[in-house]
Amino acid sequence: MLDAIDHIGVAVEDIEAGLTLYGDTLAMPAVHREVVESQGVEAVLLDVGGGHVELLRPLGPDTPVGKYLARRGPGLHHVAYRVDDVAATLGALRAKGVRLIDETPRTGIRGSTVAFLHPASTGGVLTEIVAPAAH
Amino acid sequence: MLDAIDHIGVAVEDIEAGLTLYGDTLAMPAVHREVVESQGVEAVLLDVGGGHVELLRPLGPDTPVGKYLARRGPGLHHVAYRVDDVAATLGALRAKGVRLIDETPRTGIRGSTVAFLHPASTGGVLTEIVAPAAH
Repeated sequence: MLDAIDHIGVAVEDIEAGLTLYGDTLAMPAVHREVVESQGVEAVLLDVGGGHVELLRPLGPDTPVGKYLARRGPGLHHVAYRVDDVAATLGALRAKGVRLIDETPRTGIRGSTVAFLHPASTGGVLTEIVAPAAH
Repeated sequence: MLDAIDHIGVAVEDIEAGLTLYGDTLAMPAVHREVVESQGVEAVLLDVGGGHVELLRPLGPDTPVGKYLARRGPGLHHVAYRVDDVAATLGALRAKGVRLIDETPRTGIRGSTVAFLHPASTGGVLTEIVAPAAH
């Protein structure tokens, strides 16, 4: 059902400081940077093996990541698992009683297709499923 | 420096409920279960692609994971990156000014060699480096 850990999402207050940490100190190549208005974030992807670290800077305090930062401070925000077919996986999870944030897939960073499961159904872990855009 | 995301660590209050969620609902095969007294946890590893989810149930309220659960509730606890040589990576990170929890490598789950970096140096993210035991 889930093919691999695609990325971890990390909430940051300062994206340049995040790039210094992950890009310079931890030597992960930064490969993409994008403002994702629909999610209220500026995001950076850094490669690590076949997966990524996704830095998330909120565009404002009333965004989901802005509220998360105010409540919990910077740190691990979510985990994303790679799947072939987001819609089919959502259907299978819904049939098993998993509560969803996104009832249908939507477009995420770098043209990917994504959906979030509700942390109330996933042991407090904000969980995303993602199918990368075809290359 | 870091080869891949090896696993995410998830703090749980009830390991059987975690196994139902990750093993049954999310269909990840559980491959290992171990009490790691030195870390004060009972841990379960479930495979997802080449990585893992590591469920962590504290052995008591005064353990690091027990205190984490009391403070923040169940959810994402740490991320671990796979490396070839934990001691060499610790040395390189120390030389770059990264604050360490473990100054020298120690033995982790399933005979792995592990060390933790201090979240004060890693943007609030509790970060582990791990070299799996040779098979």
